[in-house]
Amino acid sequence: MSESINIWQLASEIKFWIAAAAENVKAHLHDDLQVETKSNRNDLVTNVDKLTEKHLVGEIRRAYPKARIVGEEGFGDQVDDLAGLVFFVDPIDGTMNFVKEKENFAIMIGAYLDGIGLVGVIMDVVAGNIFWGGPELGVYKNELALPKPQNLNLADGLLGVSGPLLRKDVRHMATAVGQSSGARIIGSAGIEFTKVLQGIENGYVSHLMPWDFAAGKVMAETLGLLVTDIDGNPLSMLSSKIVLIGTERTHAQIVALQQQD
Amino acid sequence: MSESINIWQLASEIKFWIAAAAENVKAHLHDDLQVETKSNRNDLVTNVDKLTEKHLVGEIRRAYPKARIVGEEGFGDQVDDLAGLVFFVDPIDGTMNFVKEKENFAIMIGAYLDGIGLVGVIMDVVAGNIFWGGPELGVYKNELALPKPQNLNLADGLLGVSGPLLRKDVRHMATAVGQSSGARIIGSAGIEFTKVLQGIENGYVSHLMPWDFAAGKVMAETLGLLVTDIDGNPLSMLSSKIVLIGTERTHAQIVALQQQD
Repeated sequence: MSESINIWQLASEIKFWIAAAAENVKAHLHDDLQVETKSNRNDLVTNVDKLTEKHLVGEIRRAYPKARIVGEEGFGDQVDDLAGLVFFVDPIDGTMNFVKEKENFAIMIGAYLDGIGLVGVIMDVVAGNIFWGGPELGVYKNELALPKPQNLNLADGLLGVSGPLLRKDVRHMATAVGQSSGARIIGSAGIEFTKVLQGIENGYVSHLMPWDFAAGKVMAETLGLLVTDIDGNPLSMLSSKIVLIGTERTHAQIVALQQQD
Repeated sequence: MSESINIWQLASEIKFWIAAAAENVKAHLHDDLQVETKSNRNDLVTNVDKLTEKHLVGEIRRAYPKARIVGEEGFGDQVDDLAGLVFFVDPIDGTMNFVKEKENFAIMIGAYLDGIGLVGVIMDVVAGNIFWGGPELGVYKNELALPKPQNLNLADGLLGVSGPLLRKDVRHMATAVGQSSGARIIGSAGIEFTKVLQGIENGYVSHLMPWDFAAGKVMAETLGLLVTDIDGNPLSMLSSKIVLIGTERTHAQIVALQQQD
């Protein structure tokens, strides 16, 4: 299958699909939403999440009929292995922000071949920026190539965290934040990934599902950042974990905190 | 003095000064900065903070020579009482963000007469939005009047907090965040105030100095929000406190948490 995939074309197609979906989401940003809860009262899904995933899944199936799709809202396939071409789709990452802030949410797609990341695309919908790339492409913010972030220590940069991990001090997050230049909580894994890709944050820690990190992981690793579980082990693309992304130094320092237990 | 002040003119003048200062800051956003620490390693000041305050203080003195000025970086006056016209100036609120993020920082001025807020102005420099207003003016985002935010409960909205208060669970912040729709940590009091003014966050809690809250307090109170210390007591414009801003309901719920002690 590898020979038949033009990765530059694939990246362009994913960007076409996401940009079109983003226009549609923005057009309905101030409509009354149908908001439902999922695993807990702060885990939301709206009619826009569902429609956007349906639309993106339709586009992927038309262009790559043999590919399988892992979608947050369940319009994809039941995927139990990573053979062949697999797309990970998050139609609205940061649904709470979509509902409350009307900004700071993302549409994300990651494309993997036999478990290896080919292309990741994250669109910050309201800011209008598309972050995209992969190991054979480089990483870009719109048309601008992003340089590798400086390999900063934990102490020399901001650390993105999820609210629950800091609030409950899970896995030494209070210590990690205390050693950093400060915590930031944005409420969207996709937007946090874009901050780390740009060197605005040194790292980010959150409990994530594969569709939350698939796109960001491809780009982050292309830029020399490390993306593992909080103990430094490789991630599975088929299960949820506490995910740590960071510069080499920040990553090592946060993993070391876990080893003191 | 009151009769001689045209409040609409005063608001316009403050906006002129801040918008001009913002242009200058943006022009130097990617220059090498001279960064120094103040009270601790994450309390920063740069040459741009100092130059911007000098410039704003000069403009205020030219237009209102009898007024007194409280400035974060010390170019104002030694002010020990609130008689007459007093300007509170924060040249760069969110200096860490200015240095690391190159966004999410604000220029703020609050004008008070005999301790009563007349005009508050907060400019989100990089987004280019000016929030301004006062009790006799209403509150505006650029030219758009902001409505009073809905009186939502803590459980029904996002809660802005400062990193250290959540990390160290000061004053039941972990409980408050746990009862909310989620924490957000932005790293700038000014930007947090603009979120609460717009109803994007239900409330915000942080340890603040008068220049951090002077502008926001005028606007928040004009919109029916409550701005007090964390125990619900009135703020002094001459000292630092843990400040709580919130909708009536959110404010009452966070104050109630303190009373359980």
